[in-house]
Amino acid sequence: MGTISEHTLPLANYTDRLDVMNFLNEVVGLYPQAISFASGRPLEDFFDFSKWNDYVNHFACHHAKNLDVSVEKSIKLIGQYGKTQGIINDLIAQHLDKDEDIQVDPENIIVTDGAQEAMTLSLLTMFNKDKDVLLIGNPTYIGMTGIASILDIETMSVEYDDFGPRIDAIQARVEQARQVGKKVKGFYVIADFDNPSGKCVSLERRMELLECCAEKQITIFEDNPYGLFYFEEKLPTIKSLDKWDIVTYFGTFSKTICPALRVGFVVTKQKVKKDNGDQYSITEGYEKIKSFVTLNTGQFNQAVVGGVLLECGGSLKRYLSAMVETYKHNRDVMLSSLEAELGDLKKQGVLSWNTPSGGFFITLSLPFSFKESQLVECAEQFGVIGVPTAFFSDNDQHDKQLRLSYSYVKPQEIKHGVSQLAKFIHKYSAT
Amino acid sequence: MGTISEHTLPLANYTDRLDVMNFLNEVVGLYPQAISFASGRPLEDFFDFSKWNDYVNHFACHHAKNLDVSVEKSIKLIGQYGKTQGIINDLIAQHLDKDEDIQVDPENIIVTDGAQEAMTLSLLTMFNKDKDVLLIGNPTYIGMTGIASILDIETMSVEYDDFGPRIDAIQARVEQARQVGKKVKGFYVIADFDNPSGKCVSLERRMELLECCAEKQITIFEDNPYGLFYFEEKLPTIKSLDKWDIVTYFGTFSKTICPALRVGFVVTKQKVKKDNGDQYSITEGYEKIKSFVTLNTGQFNQAVVGGVLLECGGSLKRYLSAMVETYKHNRDVMLSSLEAELGDLKKQGVLSWNTPSGGFFITLSLPFSFKESQLVECAEQFGVIGVPTAFFSDNDQHDKQLRLSYSYVKPQEIKHGVSQLAKFIHKYSAT
Repeated sequence: MGTISEHTLPLANYTDRLDVMNFLNEVVGLYPQAISFASGRPLEDFFDFSKWNDYVNHFACHHAKNLDVSVEKSIKLIGQYGKTQGIINDLIAQHLDKDEDIQVDPENIIVTDGAQEAMTLSLLTMFNKDKDVLLIGNPTYIGMTGIASILDIETMSVEYDDFGPRIDAIQARVEQARQVGKKVKGFYVIADFDNPSGKCVSLERRMELLECCAEKQITIFEDNPYGLFYFEEKLPTIKSLDKWDIVTYFGTFSKTICPALRVGFVVTKQKVKKDNGDQYSITEGYEKIKSFVTLNTGQFNQAVVGGVLLECGGSLKRYLSAMVETYKHNRDVMLSSLEAELGDLKKQGVLSWNTPSGGFFITLSLPFSFKESQLVECAEQFGVIGVPTAFFSDNDQHDKQLRLSYSYVKPQEIKHGVSQLAKFIHKYSAT
Repeated sequence: MGTISEHTLPLANYTDRLDVMNFLNEVVGLYPQAISFASGRPLEDFFDFSKWNDYVNHFACHHAKNLDVSVEKSIKLIGQYGKTQGIINDLIAQHLDKDEDIQVDPENIIVTDGAQEAMTLSLLTMFNKDKDVLLIGNPTYIGMTGIASILDIETMSVEYDDFGPRIDAIQARVEQARQVGKKVKGFYVIADFDNPSGKCVSLERRMELLECCAEKQITIFEDNPYGLFYFEEKLPTIKSLDKWDIVTYFGTFSKTICPALRVGFVVTKQKVKKDNGDQYSITEGYEKIKSFVTLNTGQFNQAVVGGVLLECGGSLKRYLSAMVETYKHNRDVMLSSLEAELGDLKKQGVLSWNTPSGGFFITLSLPFSFKESQLVECAEQFGVIGVPTAFFSDNDQHDKQLRLSYSYVKPQEIKHGVSQLAKFIHKYSAT
């Protein structure tokens, strides 16, 4: 005993995709000497645990007023089990209003263990595994496709052009699903500074996407982890343009405050019609499911976020200004390093890269495949790590692309890392 | 748009059971004036956020040594995303050895968002929804049955006698499942100070349970949130008696340190045999699934737990001694109050209660049904809240029982609350 045959475990069906997430989480530790463009981590310079207790105390005063109890009691209550839905919903609503022009009732927010849990809860609450289909981009964030695999929910990918997801491709997928007796229930999109591509959906395409999904009764799952890190013009989120209440919005404080918090949220305002004609909010459904997945989100950590939001008057944009400047500088250093090291190949049309207007990532398109073995060679022999875009894709369309993250690396390292990467690329391009 | 018909949501199938969890989480807020015996919460007197930063710093030194980095770097890494499996696994292993006589490799531990997530991960990793059955007690903790409902995994209940789950009942369920082409994959049990009953499984029954489950290839999911709160003799955990590696063990620091941490863990040592004959640890499977459910457990909170474990040399038993004294005193006050107020009815054989040797709960057996309407009447008109055991059951066998928690209430309130409850019971018993 103590041994189980693999074929009796659900796990056996989807092992490959699941390996990628752990790789992304742990790659930095695997090659400690290499310069890493792999990790979409925020800069550690801005973490400061010594302030956290002050944030908690600040929030505790606010919470005491909300609950009409003493501050001392409010602190004890923060230490306890608590409301499944969360305790900082009012402050998140204020932040969404100020930073994203999204007006939402705090009752329509559920605080989650990072945006990852928001994805888990959305699939569990909204999707019937044998009937419903989730549309995704290709490539796309592996966190959403991974949890869909685990829950056995079918995904279909939608082609993108330079402006975002193609509307005709969405319509074709709806029809394709219909023909096999299924329904497209949702579409997952990172409209601002996509992971992995770094690209944005254009304003016009956002409007077209909303019109199309409203007509086809498709929920748009808008994931917005990087939206506040914009270096030029800011586009409105899809959620802020949504007059039909069809957008379910995922947010996280991992990039803006600290990943260790594991505090994210989901905003959803849809109504469920019962058979007797009554309506109730889908938020209640999320709440029930969450109470059995993780019970509730850690309240100390919520209180830290609450304290930060109180201290910056709800606008994280102001809180983030130094961080955004750093990321912009890093992007500029990476772009100029790419130009200096690979500008010749670019001019010859051999390779190309995009110029992201915000976020953490640049996509580099190469004349040769860059997959796991290239990653390993590049890390071991040239001391630099980039992530194959293929890791985020379920076909071979993106085998020649590379995601480079500039968020987490010092400018000097960016220069050196790009120079090393260029050596690798020149070597391969010559053969 | 913005409206979805209920029948198209998976949620519609299991709404009732899911309501109970939210009720348990939020009942204290619903009747703020009432004395609550409802909530299995730990005492707030022992929470102290002001020490948390010191715990984190203490752990950061230990972590720095483990990783061979500076303490400053170790603190930054705690703030980041991190290993899916957790960063305090070595300290949890030491604690299990010292407090529970469980010897386990840190590699076989996965740190989770409370024990609730350990249950979610276990079902996702181990169970095929159409083939596998989970055995449960009746009544049992709603967190396990709730997540099984959500994931559409069949549960079958097993009868208990005074010594624990009946072995013949387990065998009958195995046979019953076999006849419909299914397999009993696991058995969920709280062997120490059960929630809701407050009872323990006897030592002899623990051994029999192990023998039976080893023979039938059934994983025992041993959930042990209350085990360290023993007032008399301590029985060995089932895990510590397990020579077959068939026990998957759930632990939590919510009761021992603070619920707001949301730090729990799962220990599992089973091997999976691949088709080519290779074996790998099921821990890897848990790790992959966890990376898509919540990514990783909040590292600041892990560091708080790590700091506590370092400061108490791995033995929480010592750290808990004042808390355990308080709980024991509370139990004694509740038992003597029950004797004083309801001893007459007990002598007449009209009602009864057990004498728990640890944990948070007493079960009171009444001559009349105690369900939701009785709860509401008792709370509103008598100012005292108890939870119907029926809430933890899927049939009407336990409709006349009541779970009383003494963990969270001051002795004076226990006396007054029992006296109020006795008035309610005398009124009902007389009619």
